[in-house]
Amino acid sequence: MHNWLLPEYVEDILPAEALHIEVTRRQILDLLLTHGYQQVIPPLLEYVESLLSGSGSDMDLQTFKVIDQLSGRMMGLRADMTPQVARIDAHLLNFSGITRLCYVNSVLHTIPSGITQTREPLQIGAELYGHSGLESDLEVQRLMLQCLSTSHINEIHLDLGHVAVFRGLIKGAGISRELEAELFSVLQAKDISTLQELCLKLKKSIREALLLLPELYGDKKILADAIALLPDYPVIRTALNELGLVEKELKPIVGSVAFDLADLRGYHYHTGMVFAAYAKGCSNAIALGGRYDEIGKTFGRARPATGFSMDLRELSRLVKPKKYPKGIRAPFEKKDKRLEDMIQQLRKAGHIVIMELPEQKDEFMVCDRQLVLLDGKWIIEEI
Amino acid sequence: MHNWLLPEYVEDILPAEALHIEVTRRQILDLLLTHGYQQVIPPLLEYVESLLSGSGSDMDLQTFKVIDQLSGRMMGLRADMTPQVARIDAHLLNFSGITRLCYVNSVLHTIPSGITQTREPLQIGAELYGHSGLESDLEVQRLMLQCLSTSHINEIHLDLGHVAVFRGLIKGAGISRELEAELFSVLQAKDISTLQELCLKLKKSIREALLLLPELYGDKKILADAIALLPDYPVIRTALNELGLVEKELKPIVGSVAFDLADLRGYHYHTGMVFAAYAKGCSNAIALGGRYDEIGKTFGRARPATGFSMDLRELSRLVKPKKYPKGIRAPFEKKDKRLEDMIQQLRKAGHIVIMELPEQKDEFMVCDRQLVLLDGKWIIEEI
Repeated sequence: MHNWLLPEYVEDILPAEALHIEVTRRQILDLLLTHGYQQVIPPLLEYVESLLSGSGSDMDLQTFKVIDQLSGRMMGLRADMTPQVARIDAHLLNFSGITRLCYVNSVLHTIPSGITQTREPLQIGAELYGHSGLESDLEVQRLMLQCLSTSHINEIHLDLGHVAVFRGLIKGAGISRELEAELFSVLQAKDISTLQELCLKLKKSIREALLLLPELYGDKKILADAIALLPDYPVIRTALNELGLVEKELKPIVGSVAFDLADLRGYHYHTGMVFAAYAKGCSNAIALGGRYDEIGKTFGRARPATGFSMDLRELSRLVKPKKYPKGIRAPFEKKDKRLEDMIQQLRKAGHIVIMELPEQKDEFMVCDRQLVLLDGKWIIEEI
Repeated sequence: MHNWLLPEYVEDILPAEALHIEVTRRQILDLLLTHGYQQVIPPLLEYVESLLSGSGSDMDLQTFKVIDQLSGRMMGLRADMTPQVARIDAHLLNFSGITRLCYVNSVLHTIPSGITQTREPLQIGAELYGHSGLESDLEVQRLMLQCLSTSHINEIHLDLGHVAVFRGLIKGAGISRELEAELFSVLQAKDISTLQELCLKLKKSIREALLLLPELYGDKKILADAIALLPDYPVIRTALNELGLVEKELKPIVGSVAFDLADLRGYHYHTGMVFAAYAKGCSNAIALGGRYDEIGKTFGRARPATGFSMDLRELSRLVKPKKYPKGIRAPFEKKDKRLEDMIQQLRKAGHIVIMELPEQKDEFMVCDRQLVLLDGKWIIEEI
């Protein structure tokens, strides 16, 4: 084995791409900060009990575990920052009004989620706590779209779903927890034949509704179908109305919108509308979000919550990075105050100035200009 | 156990401090980038063989280990980014001239290094490869001092050492590897009585020199003592000369300089001058660095290298963070283009603008101004 071989789906990021990620990171973070989302920095690891409680339980298999040598207890390396931020909102800040928080940092996955994905996504996201109305869903959805356009990713396709539709059917039919879990699995897997089997014993209206769900994918016409064909439960009616309203609001600023009433991603913690953004030429969603009102419960305080997150690495991969900027070479002169001042000013203005070193052969940084002394004055000339 | 309890020496960072860290991060990173140090982003985990090879072996106990589920091999969570950056220089970039690289990211330690320290330092640093002269040592030392003053940490005390002094004595006396390791340990521990025992069998000049080392701590007078009292080996003479030259160069820009010839921190990988910066009121070094010319060897390419690193969290803790900036509240109005434009402009200029939500009670973000419509124009008024 070579020492420099990296594990699969783990990679080094080299200067041009690193700079591109850094620029995107600052643009998005600044956008979140100026929208009033305050940054928090949760730790890379914590006890599995807190990391995987509630919303985090879906992530158990994705979470690397290590033993805490100080306590002997099991710690996990976060696979998602959302539960950590919920913990901070629920316990540490403990504020009853609206709280807007954001975060950016690496998370680790034991296995990559998709074929092209990394095991170390650089997760950036925003969460809004303490408001249950559709207006906060719209705020975070708009914010997500703005983050994408700031990163020069336009022509977004938006997928909208609502877990209240499935949840409403389950509750309305009085379905057991066991059967609910089975139905959830087969719907996720779009395994229609098993779905048909499981539905055999249910009453006709529920059976037909559940079998219809996987077909309720498409543009706003399917909302009308859903209203006509699904049982007329108030929760389902409200969910479908909300989806229609959001489509109307966001249509002008996205490329296309589709609905997917069988999308149960994050069903175990999501409680309301869920959404996913897709970019051209990318089969995986580039940003995901939704409402998850129960998230703080395990920390002693369930409160309304909605938010989104995305992978900065994936995002910046969609846009071709600029070439690394070229530098200005400065001669190795120790005691010229004017030269020193000029170099300092250039650097403050964002220019890269490289000091030549004695006996140097060549340098990795490409310089296209240099500082030279002309008639007693330091000037920049092209190389 | 409460779910929100964090492991010891692991902590959440809340908005005011997070913002302070973010600002400091950008200032220091910009300084490094404009000095021509190009950012690389190595992965959080890699195979232990590469992580702990060569310079990394000192970090074995400090490194959390996990099993790679894809290969069954052992991976480590980096406890230091320097070996990773050396791997990138040696293998991935593989450039023979001068290469300047920088990095900023979390590292993890199984146990905290000091009583006040965290297990998740936010390491930022710079490395210069391919130049063995004193000029590159000076470049990184100056850069480190500038990073500190950019972070408003001045009046730095600088400790200088040089592993070539101890190494020269060992080599000159033909001391075995076993005894070398023992001598190293007792010198590190300043265990004088065991040192005396170990030296009993050595010839007089070496014995006296080794016993003298722990006393060679202080201002530049000790350099003269060292020249007078240590064996006149060329490597030792060169090392002492270099220390004198660096002191002369840096004296004007630091608060104080001291020498410590028994400082063998990182002896296993350092090969030349080592340095540590201390701030007032902080017993731990806030920045560390040195020359480690052998670092790329394990990746197939030993080349000259010198660099420094520091913990951004520790650093920003030394300066009181500013209060979190206050926001501007905007009314929830959907369809006023002028209001939308004004909000966008304000945010672009760096102001925080918070959209009020219907039925909201209170918000975590403190606003001291609001947007109001006056005579058909949106203006900002104090609250």
